[in-house]
Amino acid sequence: MAQQAVTPQSVDFSKWYNEIVYKADLCDLSPVRGCLIIKPYGYELWEAVKNGLDRRFKATGHQNAYFPLFIPESFLKREAQHVEGFSPELAVVTIAGGKELEEPLVVRPTSETIIMDSFKNWIQSYRDLPLLINQWANVVRWELRTRPFLRTTEFLWQEGHTAHATTEEAEAETMQMLEIYADFAINDAAIPVIKGRKTEREKFAGAVHTYTIEAMMKDTKALQSGTSHNLGQNFSKAFEITFLDQNNETQNPWTTSWGLSTRMVGAIVMTHGDDKGLRLPPKVAPIQVVVVPIFKNDDEKATVMSAVTQLSKELLEANIRIHVDKREGMSPGFKYNDWEMRGVPLRMEVGPKDVQNGTVALARRDIPGKEGKQFLPQAGIAKTVQDLLNTIQSNMLQQATEFRDANIFDVSNYDELKGLMDKGGWARVWWAGSSEDEARIKEETGATVRCIPFEQPGGNDKCFFTGKPADTIALFAKAY
Amino acid sequence: MAQQAVTPQSVDFSKWYNEIVYKADLCDLSPVRGCLIIKPYGYELWEAVKNGLDRRFKATGHQNAYFPLFIPESFLKREAQHVEGFSPELAVVTIAGGKELEEPLVVRPTSETIIMDSFKNWIQSYRDLPLLINQWANVVRWELRTRPFLRTTEFLWQEGHTAHATTEEAEAETMQMLEIYADFAINDAAIPVIKGRKTEREKFAGAVHTYTIEAMMKDTKALQSGTSHNLGQNFSKAFEITFLDQNNETQNPWTTSWGLSTRMVGAIVMTHGDDKGLRLPPKVAPIQVVVVPIFKNDDEKATVMSAVTQLSKELLEANIRIHVDKREGMSPGFKYNDWEMRGVPLRMEVGPKDVQNGTVALARRDIPGKEGKQFLPQAGIAKTVQDLLNTIQSNMLQQATEFRDANIFDVSNYDELKGLMDKGGWARVWWAGSSEDEARIKEETGATVRCIPFEQPGGNDKCFFTGKPADTIALFAKAY
Repeated sequence: MAQQAVTPQSVDFSKWYNEIVYKADLCDLSPVRGCLIIKPYGYELWEAVKNGLDRRFKATGHQNAYFPLFIPESFLKREAQHVEGFSPELAVVTIAGGKELEEPLVVRPTSETIIMDSFKNWIQSYRDLPLLINQWANVVRWELRTRPFLRTTEFLWQEGHTAHATTEEAEAETMQMLEIYADFAINDAAIPVIKGRKTEREKFAGAVHTYTIEAMMKDTKALQSGTSHNLGQNFSKAFEITFLDQNNETQNPWTTSWGLSTRMVGAIVMTHGDDKGLRLPPKVAPIQVVVVPIFKNDDEKATVMSAVTQLSKELLEANIRIHVDKREGMSPGFKYNDWEMRGVPLRMEVGPKDVQNGTVALARRDIPGKEGKQFLPQAGIAKTVQDLLNTIQSNMLQQATEFRDANIFDVSNYDELKGLMDKGGWARVWWAGSSEDEARIKEETGATVRCIPFEQPGGNDKCFFTGKPADTIALFAKAY
Repeated sequence: MAQQAVTPQSVDFSKWYNEIVYKADLCDLSPVRGCLIIKPYGYELWEAVKNGLDRRFKATGHQNAYFPLFIPESFLKREAQHVEGFSPELAVVTIAGGKELEEPLVVRPTSETIIMDSFKNWIQSYRDLPLLINQWANVVRWELRTRPFLRTTEFLWQEGHTAHATTEEAEAETMQMLEIYADFAINDAAIPVIKGRKTEREKFAGAVHTYTIEAMMKDTKALQSGTSHNLGQNFSKAFEITFLDQNNETQNPWTTSWGLSTRMVGAIVMTHGDDKGLRLPPKVAPIQVVVVPIFKNDDEKATVMSAVTQLSKELLEANIRIHVDKREGMSPGFKYNDWEMRGVPLRMEVGPKDVQNGTVALARRDIPGKEGKQFLPQAGIAKTVQDLLNTIQSNMLQQATEFRDANIFDVSNYDELKGLMDKGGWARVWWAGSSEDEARIKEETGATVRCIPFEQPGGNDKCFFTGKPADTIALFAKAY
């Protein structure tokens, strides 16, 4: 019950993160190496992410389905780059029902291979295309270094898998899904992600192109927050998927896949959190308003609770997610800290004086201290609160955007990049290097190309690393 | 595309089921032994089950969380009956990240053990109780004989796990959750389940009591459709969970668990389906109304589609789940058969004459042929359709209830039971037998005690098997 101090972000951001996810009750340690227990508060946050995405997927014609957890080992080997990328991370079932299995079963690290095996049966003609499938599932990748939500052995995600009659349609789908991820990140999670393309070195194992949304965490490191892959005909050829096109010719379809995981919970924590705890954007917050009744005796309690009941009713009717903190034996101050730790966007304090004045105190989580606290009339409370929540939502996006923009620097030579990587920040550079150049830069500075942003300034200049002519801007940063 | 005949239920019910689940596009065969691919139409049905239950769980104060897929082998061994029950069915990961694991990891067959390990950390005082957790997850049980939805190696389910300060509260929770299952089954899935208690022989491995909802399939076999377990202190003692009660005494809490799975999809198919295909209750049907436009030329098409657009708009605004079948090159008759196979509760036909008359034809899936077809005005269509859907929902429950009641027979001696088990039906008997008696009856007739119904007639009579005095009625049947 004691509220211990949190390591400040400025002292050790990584330690801050590792403390905060547990203190805010998002998750718990698991007895299984690298796995995470997602506690109810963290799971509700994940449900908000799920609902926000699922709605967008369905609105664009995608359907959910479910494929087996286990993948025959032979399937994974069919696409050469794919198996190379995933082999070191696989968990393998060798015994089942008391017997050794003839063919070991891999616990899915991703489901391209098993889903393509079905697509082979489901696709015969161009009339069967596009085929737009999504799956909500758990996947397992045996990671050496794990971190709550950011990198865990088992994680929850959605994986979309689609097939198309033309390369143009596949490309349009790949882009559409990246736009959906960006729309969710920016407008619901208040994370000002940058959209772009991954380099050859950083793309998905088996993809032609990988697109990504990259977010800047509060320590200025990057977090890849969602990716969308144009798989070309790599998988359809490996899995012998064919269709008869409108001219009655046999073709391999073009496929895509795209995924976003519980990592998004980590992104929300590290984009918005501060030394007092989480700060959750209202649109995804499990609790949008916490109501703290304040009283010293039974008389005051009766007065205050009657007002609280009425206010709660009005807020619930307006579909605002509220929680009344009725815990006894705790001071209001203790409760304030507790809910600040959990990142509830708005706190409503109701005491006897407030009842007398027909007001409530509303304290914003996005603006600390007295500056964020207002006394407002009880009359019309639902509209007042909804307006404030909207303001908080856009303010949080603005704060994060300003932080991001203040930490992206134009860098014109390698020494500058090295300096920046020591200091912290993203480097915006003209780039014409090779995969080998990228590898050397990573080796020497820890920085990788996060993406080639879709938004390009145009024109050209010298590559910051090779000095060759470059017509493309790239973003380099250290990343999770 | 060709519509092949289905094996009639009367010829071979089991074959009918195995054909229908694929023809109605609920699922597909998987390349992994015993696993199932749930196709979009089947998954939407499962989502309706999920949403119906999740809403009820949250309304009764339960919270979702997520625990690891993998369970250390040692955990499973802590509760003796539990490990005995599940050992033969386990899938075991022995290799991960390219190395042999020191302690093998079991893929969860159910999560009591790993969740109790967390409860040990989360529960200290009576103030932490009740702890009401639910998990939506996949589980794996290596079954020898599998059947789509009814028994698969991997399946989807929810598992509730709760802890309480008193045995009375645990018992009340166990009952409450069974009531929730029954409420969903009866009111949403239109399955008139019978609530009751499992015998010692049939209860969950590790439970004190198991309660069940039992449904009668159309071949008169029983399907256990959801179970709720009072686990007493068995697991809390095995996992050393303790709390300080209000008198400051250390106690072990009383725990419960309860689960309902994708098996419910099979229950819906086998309760309502007929020789033409599925029949889905409106409340859970992914599509409640299919609209089939009928026209012979472009002029007619323009007229008909303009009416269809208007009708669709009105139905969508009333939150009715509709689908307009715009496929070309298919006769209306072909489409009718197709949607009857998929069990859509109501079909709306709109042709040029209907437009002229300001009417539509509405054909009910629950009443075959002309008797189920009406011509009704387009004006006020949303209300007309909603009323019809309500009527279909209650009619389907009534049909299933009548079928069930017509196939439960009072049986007063063992010969009668044998005869009934050959013929088909459930036996209602006075019962005072032992677990050994049950084993012999199962061995000789295939019948098991499905439950001791909560609803008892009172009074007493001779046990149909042992002849001993009995004050309890039991239901015997063959089961899936």
